[in-house]
Amino acid sequence: MKNILIVGAGRSASSLIKYLLEQSNKESYHITIADLSLESAIRKTKNHPNATAIQLDLFDIETRRTEIQKADIVVSMLPASYHIELAKDCITYKKHMVTASYISPEMAALDEAAKENGLVFMNECGLDPGIDHMSAMRILDEIKEKGGKTISFQSYCGGLVAPESDDNIWNYKFTWNPRNVVLAGQGGAAKFIQEGQYKYIPYNKVFRRTEFMQVEGYGRFEGYANRDSLKYRKIYGLEDASTVFRGTIRRVGYSRAWNVFVELGITDDTYIIDNSETMSYREFINLYLPYHPTDSVEVKLRLALNIDMDDILWDKLEELDIFNPNKIIGLKNATPAQVLERILTDSWTLKEHDKDMIVMYHKIGYEINGELKQIDSTMVCIGDDQTYTAMAKTVGLPVAIATSKILKGIINTPGVQLPIDKEVYGPILKELEENGIIFKEKEVPYKGA
Amino acid sequence: MKNILIVGAGRSASSLIKYLLEQSNKESYHITIADLSLESAIRKTKNHPNATAIQLDLFDIETRRTEIQKADIVVSMLPASYHIELAKDCITYKKHMVTASYISPEMAALDEAAKENGLVFMNECGLDPGIDHMSAMRILDEIKEKGGKTISFQSYCGGLVAPESDDNIWNYKFTWNPRNVVLAGQGGAAKFIQEGQYKYIPYNKVFRRTEFMQVEGYGRFEGYANRDSLKYRKIYGLEDASTVFRGTIRRVGYSRAWNVFVELGITDDTYIIDNSETMSYREFINLYLPYHPTDSVEVKLRLALNIDMDDILWDKLEELDIFNPNKIIGLKNATPAQVLERILTDSWTLKEHDKDMIVMYHKIGYEINGELKQIDSTMVCIGDDQTYTAMAKTVGLPVAIATSKILKGIINTPGVQLPIDKEVYGPILKELEENGIIFKEKEVPYKGA
Repeated sequence: MKNILIVGAGRSASSLIKYLLEQSNKESYHITIADLSLESAIRKTKNHPNATAIQLDLFDIETRRTEIQKADIVVSMLPASYHIELAKDCITYKKHMVTASYISPEMAALDEAAKENGLVFMNECGLDPGIDHMSAMRILDEIKEKGGKTISFQSYCGGLVAPESDDNIWNYKFTWNPRNVVLAGQGGAAKFIQEGQYKYIPYNKVFRRTEFMQVEGYGRFEGYANRDSLKYRKIYGLEDASTVFRGTIRRVGYSRAWNVFVELGITDDTYIIDNSETMSYREFINLYLPYHPTDSVEVKLRLALNIDMDDILWDKLEELDIFNPNKIIGLKNATPAQVLERILTDSWTLKEHDKDMIVMYHKIGYEINGELKQIDSTMVCIGDDQTYTAMAKTVGLPVAIATSKILKGIINTPGVQLPIDKEVYGPILKELEENGIIFKEKEVPYKGA
Repeated sequence: MKNILIVGAGRSASSLIKYLLEQSNKESYHITIADLSLESAIRKTKNHPNATAIQLDLFDIETRRTEIQKADIVVSMLPASYHIELAKDCITYKKHMVTASYISPEMAALDEAAKENGLVFMNECGLDPGIDHMSAMRILDEIKEKGGKTISFQSYCGGLVAPESDDNIWNYKFTWNPRNVVLAGQGGAAKFIQEGQYKYIPYNKVFRRTEFMQVEGYGRFEGYANRDSLKYRKIYGLEDASTVFRGTIRRVGYSRAWNVFVELGITDDTYIIDNSETMSYREFINLYLPYHPTDSVEVKLRLALNIDMDDILWDKLEELDIFNPNKIIGLKNATPAQVLERILTDSWTLKEHDKDMIVMYHKIGYEINGELKQIDSTMVCIGDDQTYTAMAKTVGLPVAIATSKILKGIINTPGVQLPIDKEVYGPILKELEENGIIFKEKEVPYKGA
């Protein structure tokens, strides 16, 4: 019997738990699902005989340590900042660990201790980070194996609404944390390398300098630059690549319309608006437009941002009902970003039967025998419903598979790591395919950056 | 004999010290000038028999307290965050105090103790804050006295280059802290009230929503919004005014050209640029422009920001030599804002005989006997040279006059305060006039906001 302790039974844990429970008879797994809310934990067990739900407060050290001692491996699905408490205990009690989060400096500091104790601490093993690393490294390693040299790396990922549920003209709904969507691109310029030149895009241009891509069967998408494309340059072995770019995928037209909010200044999260609670949506928009004795909010906005009468942009704004004088914000001491999130939530909340969609796109250019070639690799995953969403599947399944492979000793190199080695990504990607998360790779003419 | 202790012998202390030394025989003043640099302190004494220079480290508590005990009044010309140490000692040893800085919460907390001990703690008694309060309150009080009601308040101030030294097409040079100029407008939206409506201007629009004004004999100026125009609404008694706006003065065209830097993203101070030390000005600008295999930096910039060939904007950019591939930044680990400051310093540093200029402009609309009226009040001060600059005069003289009036008991209401009472601003404004700092008030037709 192998004991798996899963800490955190939130939205992204559903597919993870489902996978492990499905394997539990065959592989003799017992799964303990721990959450601050016992009710959440119980719900996730689905009354499966191989699952136990417990209430766990991370800061109840005694219970935490007792549970860790009983486990063979610990999976943390908590917010990233909480992993470290569990990780230290895992060193103490010699347990493997898996997370879907970026390796923090505190986590990295445990590398030596993990190695000494023969423990696998697998991180960044969800979607992004996670599947992005694995699927990209498979291509990069293949290029290297056949004697090629990667010269250009572009990688995009986005959480969107599935085509069958795509019924608004933004072609977007919130499928994950809305706050992150509202604050996207803020906090310093987006940084990348293009044709050997470092490039920065300031926040006020991020949504205007987009790239376009076509995914067979799914139409066109656009991508805006992520904040730091260069973070993985060294880890991926791309020091010599002249283009390294990472971006976020949206449907074409989203970014241009989003930029209206950037230009208005209503994505700002740094100050509080007076009287936000009793203000109407219309009054909120008017805060950001020049005073005029007779012009309407609409006329002022059109003028300020130079929006043509027949521009689809305008329909997008109207669809959100931002000019409504009767809808009240109802949030006390809110920042502009919080107000915008509230307004968007009215329009962009998934309906009961709506499904989400994850799209990933790599464009990798390389040189081989003096020739320039390019591999495009795309993955589309559609959610089953609002429990087994595309997000839950793509985040949870790689974590689950990694957990299972570590227990079986298939993934066994110790240390604090991310899934960039063939030994690790090979078996995980293979099993992801069996679970419908499939990358389609094809050779295309080299396009440059 | 009255002993005045001046702590901090920086640039803004020169006119302050000159004024007090000139009065010193008649009024029996002895002035102790204390600075971390003894040399700076000595230089400021001008070998005057009534002045003593001492070296003072603010954190050498013993010397500090000894010097404060010897004084009748303490003038702090240190950076704002250091006043509080002196202020606490002034309470202990029962000394009056004067500063040109905003009242910090820590300073405000001493109000009761100051009152109990009969001490005048006069703050915000320089230019801005200082002369702005005094000159505005004089008008506001006059309106109230004659039975009027202020309905609109707009106030602008700017440090510029004097017309006789104005020899670049930006019509601007650094006359004070360049860093503040580069960072102007950042950190949340500019906030004000116009015709009863709250308005916010985000950073990316601050330099595009300017107001214009004409100063007799000096031509046209423009003003961009300060961050928080509403700070003094209550203090000035403007709760019922439907427009309250404060702004910064520049020559017409400055803001439009400055906005190029905002749009490029090179005023950002939140991240460090790789290789800033060895990068050329041209390479720096190119970081912020899209990659193109053949287009020049100039062509890309014109396209990105839609600048016409014959736009004076372009000449302004060229004047700064930002396209020079041979000028090297030479700053290690610099932020974009620091690089921009370096580039601007090449062009905007005052030459030996250059003079600076302070311009202040109030537009105050009021209602009296059912009629709408407006008073415009303007002040222009030109520096004598690079010691007795307009900035040093307008910051230092009101501090000096307040110090003298407190010693004479003319200003005598105790407590932590700013110069908004007639008892205080009356005698100070009068003596400022005698020193050439003169407001010209005139009734003009009411213009609204």
